[in-house]
Amino acid sequence: MTTTNYEGLQSVIWHDDKLDLLDQRLLPEEIVYLPLVTKEDVWEAIRHLKVRGAPAIGIAAAYGVALGSRSAESAEAWLADVRQAAEYLATSRPTAVNLFWALDRMKARAEALASEGHSLEALKQALLDEAIAIQSEDEETNRMIGEHALSLFQDDIGVLTHCNAGGLATAKYGTALAPFYLAKERGMNIRVFADETRPVLQGARLTAFELQQAGVDVTLICDNMAGHVMSKGWVNAVIVGTDRVAANGDVANKIGTYSVAVLAKAHGIPFYVACPLSTIDLNTPTGAEIPIEERNAEEITEGFGKRTAPQGVKVYNPAFDITPNEYVTAIITEKGIIEAPFDVNLKKLFES
Amino acid sequence: MTTTNYEGLQSVIWHDDKLDLLDQRLLPEEIVYLPLVTKEDVWEAIRHLKVRGAPAIGIAAAYGVALGSRSAESAEAWLADVRQAAEYLATSRPTAVNLFWALDRMKARAEALASEGHSLEALKQALLDEAIAIQSEDEETNRMIGEHALSLFQDDIGVLTHCNAGGLATAKYGTALAPFYLAKERGMNIRVFADETRPVLQGARLTAFELQQAGVDVTLICDNMAGHVMSKGWVNAVIVGTDRVAANGDVANKIGTYSVAVLAKAHGIPFYVACPLSTIDLNTPTGAEIPIEERNAEEITEGFGKRTAPQGVKVYNPAFDITPNEYVTAIITEKGIIEAPFDVNLKKLFES
Repeated sequence: MTTTNYEGLQSVIWHDDKLDLLDQRLLPEEIVYLPLVTKEDVWEAIRHLKVRGAPAIGIAAAYGVALGSRSAESAEAWLADVRQAAEYLATSRPTAVNLFWALDRMKARAEALASEGHSLEALKQALLDEAIAIQSEDEETNRMIGEHALSLFQDDIGVLTHCNAGGLATAKYGTALAPFYLAKERGMNIRVFADETRPVLQGARLTAFELQQAGVDVTLICDNMAGHVMSKGWVNAVIVGTDRVAANGDVANKIGTYSVAVLAKAHGIPFYVACPLSTIDLNTPTGAEIPIEERNAEEITEGFGKRTAPQGVKVYNPAFDITPNEYVTAIITEKGIIEAPFDVNLKKLFES
Repeated sequence: MTTTNYEGLQSVIWHDDKLDLLDQRLLPEEIVYLPLVTKEDVWEAIRHLKVRGAPAIGIAAAYGVALGSRSAESAEAWLADVRQAAEYLATSRPTAVNLFWALDRMKARAEALASEGHSLEALKQALLDEAIAIQSEDEETNRMIGEHALSLFQDDIGVLTHCNAGGLATAKYGTALAPFYLAKERGMNIRVFADETRPVLQGARLTAFELQQAGVDVTLICDNMAGHVMSKGWVNAVIVGTDRVAANGDVANKIGTYSVAVLAKAHGIPFYVACPLSTIDLNTPTGAEIPIEERNAEEITEGFGKRTAPQGVKVYNPAFDITPNEYVTAIITEKGIIEAPFDVNLKKLFES
């Protein structure tokens, strides 16, 4: 086990009055921590995918609010700075609901604190503590997601995952990858197939990397090999993360997730989605209401320093897709495993 | 229309007493024609993948035999040179069926000519004419495939293709891409979606390139976007080439084809396979008997000129997959459109 090694790979670390952020764009070739000291640093890091993964983005943004308000010289200015920082950081990425959730939580906490009449220093410290709490709650949430997910898996099976919903995307453990870490700790053998996940290759660069570091049995494949690998009988389950779950159980996740879900269904393989409650958005009725970010053509035509497509070619580069609820076998949260009918059962989850 | 432009992109051109060969390794960044004047030049071009695509390799090899025997000074020496050139060129790529087919045809033609008592100059010209015939027959075959395929398409539809079964792989037109060239000539508008086709990116480097050059409306996507694009309703048909069709209609083609076929079926989209009769192998009962070549991990881990996966990670890299016949709507050949039951109808094709 290389837990120590893995812990060295945390995506977001509050250390020495600044946010040390693992630059995920450089992985797996280089492990570089960027010191972020302003809200602009954090915005830029989120925008340019130095930090990615919905929970990690939320945690980074929470620290960004603390950073963006720490130089205020009065309680009023501080609250105004908090609000401004939250509004500003919300513009960094359009799809990740955790971003908005974390910013709202920080803003609400600041407003509550402000109404309680603390000293300026106490306000700043309490808001920083809130960001730290968001991070440690995320770690505990992921551990619970991993426990629930692992209850669905047996020893000696193959599981396919897409993109990176791993420790690097969260405080620790990840969501979809959490059961693999727990299985490893318990001496279970799960063979993981990691889709490389074009265009940005989070599967190759991050999932294969962090699982390899942890000693998990991981095999890297190209996205277009998933169907073939399923047809071989090597895949007993699929598990992925998500950027947003709509109230009806439709799932927004990295482009290619939908194809994997359709392939899983065609092969009779269960398709699981792992996420914290904060990723479930009851205010979004269905997947149709989730905006799909389109990204630059260059991610596809020259993503790795070398041009691999003709100049001027038309490109379609959606960052996400929607997997309709009928393809989802279960949604695995820190509060348990949710099955269809998702509209009813997701709502119950928030009532209990 | 840019037919002239496209014709400038033929993979193999006999011109001015030499073979001008488009160096496909440099595409899409550079368009360079290599003048080949000896059989050694041709051997080297085939061996080092400057020419690729089974039909194009066969055509280049046929010209190689003509080049390798043109300096003979007697009919006896000429026939010996032909045999030697054929034997030599057969060692350039050990697995390409069209290569051996073309070499055997050239040798048989030379033997027949030699027995007919022509002058040395007439022998040489007749053998060159045979190579030219192989090339023009391939072009005609592809044009017929294109005609039949186009009869299945309407104006203003979207069609998705995978890998490159295009003009660059053949004398002209290609197989799966032939209908797009014909549609363009006739003023029809077909919107082509080209899967980039990891790991070697033939879709991005070749299909997107040659269709763009010809003025066809082509959009490049990553392989994992195919399902999403289908779910949008943008794809009315899928058409791909094939490396081998088994007697029961199972289809071996570039890795990822099977996933596309399953996705097409799930979306109610017809899945067509375009190929010449020479690709249909009645001696192979089913896809299960077709060996799947596994290729180097480096194609996946450092295919873009930069390492994109961790050192030492386990990789699975099959070059092909098998699409079972139940996913195939029709197989389109130069002799017409074949539908299920494929075992019966493919056999009939060779009896008629």
